[in-house]
Formats: sequence, C-alpha cells, structure tokens
Amino acid sequence: MTRTADNLDSTEAFDSEAYIDGIGRAARAAAVEMARASTQSKNEALSVIAGNIEDAEAAILAANAEDLAQASDLESALLERLTLNPKRVGAMADGLKQVADLADPVGETTAMHYRPSGIQVGQMRVPIGVVGIIYESRPNVTADAAALCLKAGNAAILRGGSEALNSNAAIAVCIAEGLLKTGLPDAAVQVIGTTDRAAVGAMLAAHKWVDVIVPRGGKGLIERVSREARMPTIKHLDGVCHVFIDTSADVTKAFDIALNSKTQRYGTCNTLETLLVARPIASRVLPKLIGAYRDAGVELRGCPEVRAMDPDIVAATESDWYEEYLAPILAIRVVDGLDQAIEHIRRYGSQHTDGIVTEDLGSARRFLAEVDSSSVMLNASTRFADGYEYGLGAEVGISTDKIHARGPVGLTGLTSQKWVVIGDGHVRG
Amino acid sequence: MTRTADNLDSTEAFDSEAYIDGIGRAARAAAVEMARASTQSKNEALSVIAGNIEDAEAAILAANAEDLAQASDLESALLERLTLNPKRVGAMADGLKQVADLADPVGETTAMHYRPSGIQVGQMRVPIGVVGIIYESRPNVTADAAALCLKAGNAAILRGGSEALNSNAAIAVCIAEGLLKTGLPDAAVQVIGTTDRAAVGAMLAAHKWVDVIVPRGGKGLIERVSREARMPTIKHLDGVCHVFIDTSADVTKAFDIALNSKTQRYGTCNTLETLLVARPIASRVLPKLIGAYRDAGVELRGCPEVRAMDPDIVAATESDWYEEYLAPILAIRVVDGLDQAIEHIRRYGSQHTDGIVTEDLGSARRFLAEVDSSSVMLNASTRFADGYEYGLGAEVGISTDKIHARGPVGLTGLTSQKWVVIGDGHVRG
Repeated sequence: MTRTADNLDSTEAFDSEAYIDGIGRAARAAAVEMARASTQSKNEALSVIAGNIEDAEAAILAANAEDLAQASDLESALLERLTLNPKRVGAMADGLKQVADLADPVGETTAMHYRPSGIQVGQMRVPIGVVGIIYESRPNVTADAAALCLKAGNAAILRGGSEALNSNAAIAVCIAEGLLKTGLPDAAVQVIGTTDRAAVGAMLAAHKWVDVIVPRGGKGLIERVSREARMPTIKHLDGVCHVFIDTSADVTKAFDIALNSKTQRYGTCNTLETLLVARPIASRVLPKLIGAYRDAGVELRGCPEVRAMDPDIVAATESDWYEEYLAPILAIRVVDGLDQAIEHIRRYGSQHTDGIVTEDLGSARRFLAEVDSSSVMLNASTRFADGYEYGLGAEVGISTDKIHARGPVGLTGLTSQKWVVIGDGHVRG
Repeated sequence: MTRTADNLDSTEAFDSEAYIDGIGRAARAAAVEMARASTQSKNEALSVIAGNIEDAEAAILAANAEDLAQASDLESALLERLTLNPKRVGAMADGLKQVADLADPVGETTAMHYRPSGIQVGQMRVPIGVVGIIYESRPNVTADAAALCLKAGNAAILRGGSEALNSNAAIAVCIAEGLLKTGLPDAAVQVIGTTDRAAVGAMLAAHKWVDVIVPRGGKGLIERVSREARMPTIKHLDGVCHVFIDTSADVTKAFDIALNSKTQRYGTCNTLETLLVARPIASRVLPKLIGAYRDAGVELRGCPEVRAMDPDIVAATESDWYEEYLAPILAIRVVDGLDQAIEHIRRYGSQHTDGIVTEDLGSARRFLAEVDSSSVMLNASTRFADGYEYGLGAEVGISTDKIHARGPVGLTGLTSQKWVVIGDGHVRG
C-alpha cells in the first residue's frame, strides 16, 4: 500500500514513529524484491508510470491547483517551483522514459582479474537498499527520484514539502499503479502522506530501515538533516560558483561563458556568483562584460580595481565573496593570476562548480587538477553542472559531499559496489 | 611538526579541543600540498620511510617493549596484536614498498565523452582531503594507514591505542623524517600523542578539518564513533560470515573451503561463523567435516538435524545464529536449499563476507547477485576477504557500510571522483 495523504491531517495527533516504522519495514521488504527485479520489469514499470502520468494530467493539475490555492503566502520563486502545467507534466513523463532508456547499473561487474592465489576478484554494482529523499516545493522531484531509485533497484521513501502534498499524492497514485501493474511491489516507492514534522525526525532516526538520506532544499532542511540523521547522507550545501578568466583566455569565449554562467538562470545552485579576472586581461574583457551584466539587470559588487573601471559598481565586502546570491547580483574581483584565483576559490568557495576560461594548457591542467570542487570546468558555462547535461537522465540532487557521490547524483550514486570472488575450491594458505 | 607523545601525559589536564584544532589546521594545509604532490615524490617518500623503519628496527622494538611492559594486564589476543618483532617490523617496511608500487589513483580520468551540447564530460579521481583513523592495539596500522593515505594524496590524522603509544611514536618519527627528506609536509601524517580520551571526542567533532573518519577496533569504539562523529565514517561492524554448501557442491571443495574458512585463523572478521548445508548433501559432507573440526579443537553448535548426526554437538540457540564468535566455535545449520540459505544470511548475517560452494551455475549466479554482503564468494574461502588478497596493497579497514566503500578499503576508498567538463566556449541554451 502506498501511503498518501488519506486520512492524515497535520493537526491530528498521531504516532509518527510507528508510522515511519511501518513504512520502513515495507520499504526494506520491497528493496529485497527490487534488488532482484529484472531490467525488463523495471523498464516496463517506468514506461507504465510515464503513461499513467500522461493519462492523469487533469487529476495532477487539479491537485496542484489545490496546493497553489493554499500556498498563496509563499514567495514567488517557491510558487513558481510548485506550479505544474501541461508542459511540466509532460516533462515528468518524458523523464521517466529517459530513465527507462538508461543502461541498468545493477549487476555490472568490473575488472574481474586473477590474483596470485588463483582466485578471481572483481566488483559488482548493487543497489544501496532503501533511499530516503526529503525535498521541498517541486512536485517533479517525486517522479524523477522515484524513477532513478526504481531503476537502480532501490526502494524509495519520498517526503515532499507540505505545500505540495496534493500534487505529490496524485503523482504517487500513478507510480503505485504502475508498480502493481508490472508485478513489482508498490512499497518500492512510498510517498509520505503527512505534513507532521515529527515524521521527518522519525525518518532521520530510522537507520534500521533507511540506508541513505538525500535532503534537497534550503539551508534549514540541510542543517536539520546533518544534525539529526543517524544514517549516511548525500547532501548539497552552498553553490558559491566561480569563473576565472585567465590571462590567456579568448576574449569572446570569456564573455560568453561569464555572461551565460550568471544570467541563464539566477536561482540555481550552479549559477556563477563570483567572477575572477586575471589583471593582464581585465581591461580587455571587463568593460564589455560590465555593460552586458547591466543590460541584463545584474547588480555588480566589485573589488577596488573593478570599481576603478566603473565607479558606479558597489564595493564588495568580505562577506560578498562567501555569498550564494541566487539572484541577479554578481561579485567581481581582479586577481594576479592563476595562483591567486585557485587560492580565492579554496578560501571562499563551496566546492560545488568552478570553471576556468583559458587557451593555456598548463593553466587548464593545473586548474582542473587543483580546484577541489564537485565539478571543474574548462571553457564551459557553470550552468552545465546538471544531471541531464551530464547524461545521467535525471538527478536526485547535486552532492557537495566528498565521499561516495560528488556533483550530480544519478543511477551510479544510488548504487554501491560489492566484491565478487570466484575460486574453484581455493583456500588461504 | 609531527605531534607525538612528547611532553603529553594522560593525567595532566590539557585543552584537547585546541590541541585537535592545531592538528586539524595543519592537516588541512598539508592536504592541499599532498593533493598536488607528484607520483614520484609520493613514491620516494614511501620508499624513504620504509628504509627509515628498517634502520630504526632497534628503536621501534625498544619502544614496543616499553608498551608491552605497561600492558601486562591486557588479554592475550590483544597482547599478541601489540607485540612487534623483527619479522613484523620488516613486514611494515615491505608494506610501504608495496604501496609505492601501486598505480597512483589521483588524476585518473575516466569515461570522457561528448554530450549532445558539445561539452566533454568525465570523472577525475581525487584525494578526499583529511582522513582521520582511530585504531587499537596493532602498531603496524600506523605504517599501513599512513602509506595508503599518503599515496592517495590525503593528509592523515592517526590516533592509535593508548597501549601502543610508544610504538606508534617511534614509527611516527620514521614517517615524519621520510616526509621531510622528500620535501613533503610532515603534517601530512600526524600521530596523536596523547591518550586523553577527550582528544578522540574533539577529533570526532572537528568536521571542519576532518573529511572522513575510519574507526578500526572493537564494538565500543565503533559505537562511540557512530554516535559522535560529525563527519562521514567508513566503518566495520560485525563479521558474521557464512559458507553455504549447495546440493550440487563438490564434496572435496566443500570440505576444504568450510574447514579453511573456520580454522585458518579464528580471531579475524572474515572467519566463518555459521556453516549452512543443503539437506540433500548433508550426510555426504557433514560427518567428515565434523570430525575435522573436532580434530582442530572447534566447538560445534548445531540445529536439530545436525545434532541427529552427532548427539555430542551442543544445541544452537537463536542467539548463536547472530554470533560473531571470533573463537574456535562454529554454528551449523541444515537448510532446504538455496532459498533458505539466502534467507538465513539476510536475517542473521552482517553483510560482511558470505560464500557458496556449488557446481551449479544457476545457484552461483543467484547467490552472487542476491546476497547483499561486502564480499560474496563462489568456491573460495571467506578468508580471502582482505586488502592484500584483493591486490589493494594494504587496507585501512574492511567496510560493512553500504555507501562509498564496501569491503576492504584501499587507495580507491581513500579517494573520490569529481566531474570534469571541457568545452571550447560552450554555453547553455
């Protein structure tokens, strides 16, 4: 049974621990079945769910309208994320079909080789087990996350934002029916149907049932999960992304990349927040860029050298270099060159996505090797740091953690590798 | 400066937070240098350290004798682990040379491919940063762990057991001198020189400086680390390992593997603890095995069917199936066949190492795919689950976690992968 909003109300007292215990137990049992499900049945389920979502467009939009009616006090960016329309419903269905087209990661066995003892050793990719995902606002995460977990052979427990409760429940019905129709356990994807905040606490404590937690949302959520989770987490902190325009950069590429990285979208974590420019090239690249940012309505905050070029630019303070604006604001600093750029990124960056624009192979090699971020880019917009752009089909999030999965997390990040040893009666001497 | 036991005493009050803060800050700075150290300089350091250890054999043995003199109240297994001799010192030096011979994992870039947008995307293997290792008794872990962390481009903070303080300090001197001689920062490997337990607490709280913690030791240590660590951990819980003798097993291979898995060494985590035998083959394989176990001095605890074959066998209770004996004791159960064996392992096992003995390809495929343990084995002794046997050169531990690293953790487990994007002025449309 997929647990949805039926008969649950945030104001009614209920036992969240027992509720999560039931969900966790069902997820664990479903995970065993999912781990041995065939590629064919998983793909069939994804395709049936995609069809269900297309067929249920009217019901999903009606549920979304209910959510929107109750969410009128949300700020506009959140409202925009919450809103579904026929195009977005179609994109959800397409996302499921794309995940069906991806190669099945489960069972992939690599590097089997003989050891001097005579045994063969290799590694087999396997599901993690039960994946808990806690997210906010965007109902499409329900479909995306379910698709990736399902294809990777995991069971998923999804806890969306209370503001999207009806939308998520409508999508959950499409998923559950698709699983049942293809003979897979419907508990493989369970959508938490209560807005009780204690249920999140119970989920974070349920390390017996949940193998990994992926939080997707604002800082408050991430901090709560970091503090309370009793199981490993795959999480995303800030996205203070940099582009460094090296002395040897091509001026046209530098202009295009610096502009696109900031202005293609403002509210995303891979958006440029601080532009670093090598002093020798600053006067050739900055004036035109400053004009273009102005035309796009971007507020600029600069170091003294940048302000010397254009006194209308606001002075950047120390805190600006740490800032993830998520808004049409950009900090700009002139640096001596590559070393100071790398040092700036190390000091102020968030290890998310950082790029260099250069035609110099030595600078490129050093930047790509030495900048310790989840994505490093050469002559490309930071906006490419995204599961779809990387070919993962979708992403359950972008990780700024340093172990397990870094950057966009797709199927591989939702699996693990176990060792496989094959002998023919071999014993250890 | 490498912090060793100088001027520190467990009885003297000191500020463990400030102490760990100093160590952490130095480790973070050293990690930056280590991440860009050349393969050649890392290998040279390993080789110089190996030579230092060989040259310092007398000093290391004298320090070890001091530790042993103070540790006379330890139980014999722990004393055995603490004891160094010329052969063990030589093995430490050889281990360092073996790690020098391994390929450098840092910078390995895989699967670079073009995306429809025109960018090239791939993944580069990079150091994790600062690795904290907390371990007990065996001084050789100091050399092994330092070698692996160094080769993987990390900085290491090592906190050995208080009983091995002098031995570890003597080894630390060899490491620090080797690092300095080859121009690498000596803070790349710091050995905690206090037995203050508060220092462990401060280390577990120092998520600002330490990227991952690896505890190696008894249950008390693992539980404390799980509870207190504010950073990700790579850890090992129980090793309740199984061998399942399938109906179609070769009787000779089954005998050899079941005997070796239990008796080759009793105190290790990959030692067999419960033997499962398919009913149709039980009468052909068990009587001879029971005799051999008896000859080896192994106490047997069996299910009713096993006891029907030999009434001298003690009756196994429910708790025996969960037990990691780490001793010459073995539980034996007759099962219907493959399904019941997999179910038993799922219920009672610890997801460490489990093997099947069979000549049937279908059984082998199912067991290897469906048993969710860090190592799964076909026709081979469970005792092979080991970093050296797998060709990792050494191991910093065996992980029973499900994310990042499973099973023996070597160089790969001490690194991560970041995304690399290469364009030529590409922007997102």
